[in-house]
Amino acid sequence: MKNGKKEKRKVDDAALKTEIKSLRERLLAQQQEIREKKLPIIVLVEGWSAAGKGSLINELISEIDPRFYNVISPVITPEAECRYPFLYPYAKAIPENGKIMFYDSGWMEDVVRKLLRREITKDQYKDRVRSVNEFERQLRDGGYLILKLFVDIDRKEQRKRMEALKNNYETEWRVTGDDLWQHKEYDAFRDAYEGFMDKTGKLVPWHILNGGDKRSAARDALKLLVTQVDEALAAGRYVGEPFKEKFPLKEMPKLSEVDLSPCLTDEDYKRELKKLQKRLGELHNRIYRKKIPVILCYEGWDAAGKGGNIRRVARPLDPRGFDVMPIASPEPRELNRQYLWRFWTRLPRSGHVCIFDRTWYGRVMVERLEGFCTEKDWKRAYNEINEFERQLTDWGAVVLKFWIHIDQDTQLARFNDRQNTPEKQWKLTEEDWRNREKWPQYEEAIDEMLQKTSTTNAPWFIIESNDKKYARIKTLRIVVDALEKACEAHI
Amino acid sequence: MKNGKKEKRKVDDAALKTEIKSLRERLLAQQQEIREKKLPIIVLVEGWSAAGKGSLINELISEIDPRFYNVISPVITPEAECRYPFLYPYAKAIPENGKIMFYDSGWMEDVVRKLLRREITKDQYKDRVRSVNEFERQLRDGGYLILKLFVDIDRKEQRKRMEALKNNYETEWRVTGDDLWQHKEYDAFRDAYEGFMDKTGKLVPWHILNGGDKRSAARDALKLLVTQVDEALAAGRYVGEPFKEKFPLKEMPKLSEVDLSPCLTDEDYKRELKKLQKRLGELHNRIYRKKIPVILCYEGWDAAGKGGNIRRVARPLDPRGFDVMPIASPEPRELNRQYLWRFWTRLPRSGHVCIFDRTWYGRVMVERLEGFCTEKDWKRAYNEINEFERQLTDWGAVVLKFWIHIDQDTQLARFNDRQNTPEKQWKLTEEDWRNREKWPQYEEAIDEMLQKTSTTNAPWFIIESNDKKYARIKTLRIVVDALEKACEAHI
Repeated sequence: MKNGKKEKRKVDDAALKTEIKSLRERLLAQQQEIREKKLPIIVLVEGWSAAGKGSLINELISEIDPRFYNVISPVITPEAECRYPFLYPYAKAIPENGKIMFYDSGWMEDVVRKLLRREITKDQYKDRVRSVNEFERQLRDGGYLILKLFVDIDRKEQRKRMEALKNNYETEWRVTGDDLWQHKEYDAFRDAYEGFMDKTGKLVPWHILNGGDKRSAARDALKLLVTQVDEALAAGRYVGEPFKEKFPLKEMPKLSEVDLSPCLTDEDYKRELKKLQKRLGELHNRIYRKKIPVILCYEGWDAAGKGGNIRRVARPLDPRGFDVMPIASPEPRELNRQYLWRFWTRLPRSGHVCIFDRTWYGRVMVERLEGFCTEKDWKRAYNEINEFERQLTDWGAVVLKFWIHIDQDTQLARFNDRQNTPEKQWKLTEEDWRNREKWPQYEEAIDEMLQKTSTTNAPWFIIESNDKKYARIKTLRIVVDALEKACEAHI
Repeated sequence: MKNGKKEKRKVDDAALKTEIKSLRERLLAQQQEIREKKLPIIVLVEGWSAAGKGSLINELISEIDPRFYNVISPVITPEAECRYPFLYPYAKAIPENGKIMFYDSGWMEDVVRKLLRREITKDQYKDRVRSVNEFERQLRDGGYLILKLFVDIDRKEQRKRMEALKNNYETEWRVTGDDLWQHKEYDAFRDAYEGFMDKTGKLVPWHILNGGDKRSAARDALKLLVTQVDEALAAGRYVGEPFKEKFPLKEMPKLSEVDLSPCLTDEDYKRELKKLQKRLGELHNRIYRKKIPVILCYEGWDAAGKGGNIRRVARPLDPRGFDVMPIASPEPRELNRQYLWRFWTRLPRSGHVCIFDRTWYGRVMVERLEGFCTEKDWKRAYNEINEFERQLTDWGAVVLKFWIHIDQDTQLARFNDRQNTPEKQWKLTEEDWRNREKWPQYEEAIDEMLQKTSTTNAPWFIIESNDKKYARIKTLRIVVDALEKACEAHI
């Protein structure tokens, strides 16, 4: 009888081995098509400490060409030391088209562990769960294939494995204080994992693998990966549908309704400029110490006076604590990733100011009008951008967005001036003239943008800039007011 | 009498103010030409704590468009926690063409402070001074304008300023333990600063500013910057001359002398592969714990079998601890900086393995042959690369370089095979055929490269790859041997 069982297990083992081998071969064969069809793939491997996440990943990658995948094993920074939004390390690491990124634990462990450690409140937990769902949806809608695995073991098995690791000189260092704490709090962790999976499994489902049996877990993971890759390759690149979520919005006028006559005398300008810059300099010191991140977004018509406006705001800031990010056309590595990636990677550290000279709103202006993305893409972007900005303000950032506004006559006068002034000619390009011809289409797009993305947490401000002096003072005042408020709120 | 002095000072003050204003205007006027002529500028501001480095930088930038400069204020990581070469944070931050980077203290403070703290030995100090000179020369030779300023104050003045800062609630946090320690050890610091400047002032001179008088220090700094920018713009982009430095070299055969007949039976291959991969996996664990960085460089003929070779080496490695970096054509941000920048930014953390699939040697192969750089550029590169690699091995890295070698007949056979096998066609491009036509020119360039850059600290290995199995085993054995040695050396 016993021998019979043994025999049976041997046969099963051999069958499992063969199955794994053939799945690996299929994955190897898919590799070329993944690259050709530019499918980006994220494999998130979460699970218990000592459940074998690392060795599972090893099984998955063993036949893939190492040029086409990467594995990261993010360190969870204690909340108090985090200088970026909690999704930042994960967003930064998304793969480019045609490549696979394996996360050896990721945003789930991050959120759950911080909840259990009470580094975040229950409300923050809820916000993070929502952000995770948004993050995954945005990637999926941008064509990413996401596979989420949870490697499960029971408490007894975990103890057995941890003891085995600890009893071996070569591996004892692998068992950390965090791991022991998890084992002690096994039940609380189980509840928290289950709760998290419950709340994040609707859009991109979770797959629970039995880590107690490493070989069959590997088989199951491989099968899931191979099947989903097949489906994704057959279906062609996924483009998400636009959808609407309610965000509290600030009412915005149409551009055509904006009165552009406000102006300032030289004298008033100088007095106000001095006063506001002095105050801004003091506030910068305070927000630096309070570690408040500040994100100022500039958009506006060509020749509206963005550059000079930015200069006046930047002038009083401590140069060690701010950056101006000019946003030009995306480079290949940027085009090969979800469109917000190039902004995620440019976020300021907390306590720093980042001034974006043009922004992610390119998606719903130039990319929309020039056809650089599909209609679904830019229509989806309003909502995605609102979500992204809410993630920034959840993190504690002050986000202010300025539309530097002029009328067509003023633009023409400034274009002509640039053309006729040798030191200014570099500022005027053929493209500026071409864009000018599309003024009505742009105006329509901008109106729609202002209506749909002026959320109360990250509002738009239309800055009347026919008179540049007026525009600068108005902008400075908005910045100063917002920073005053933020400093008061963070005691 | 007293009144007369006061009067005189007022006149001087007014004159200084006017002078500063006019210098700033000149800098503003230069800005456009800096961009047009693509001049990259580095301003290193070193000096005593509380000497006013920050406010000096503020004076320099106050008229420049913030899109064209950046300021970094690098934190000096304690030596024991450094995971990268000491120049890494500075090399990573070099500006792109047409932009200015201000370093609010930099490599000088880093090296001097660590010497005085005894975080580095005197020998390490010497190596770092040498590396700094190399770093600055490479940038200068690559067209960078470098201005090095030292803001000087005496001990009494430093005490006065620190006390003023400490007595103000808003500024007391600015005086750190490091600052107080510096003040206590003022004399030792003075000696160390002077010693460092003495050893690093030949190529790119130091300019000492009197920080006791902030306004005239600002004037002096502005004058230096404006004058040097004028000179650099007038002279046109600087291209450094090739020069020779003696490096201990390993003797290398010419490619034509290499016997390509070695091969392995399937049986021997499988046995050795298993054995070596097992050993490599164990060693990876050890180098991870000992925090030894490992850099493996692959170059070779098209179709020589680089990919398969890399796969066999990567296979046993823990995927969380290695990266494969495929090096394709540089992107714009890379072309706009010194050519080694894109490799500096890809270095592995200590304890990690980075496999470069093609490397910085592109400079002396494809860039040389296709005319992507000047003759002076590629001729200088042998020496620059030897220096770069010595900086890596000084840091503790294992650097191994493999030339995967085949003969022309084998290449042709493999090209034909790729052409005739649908799953392999993607591997063969028009460019491969074009490169093949230039075999003799490439062979000449490669021979020169192997002769000039096979240093004893970062040697080349020619891997006979007509038989891929033989090539893989040879490579694995070299890696295993080198890691064994490195592990023994780091106890």
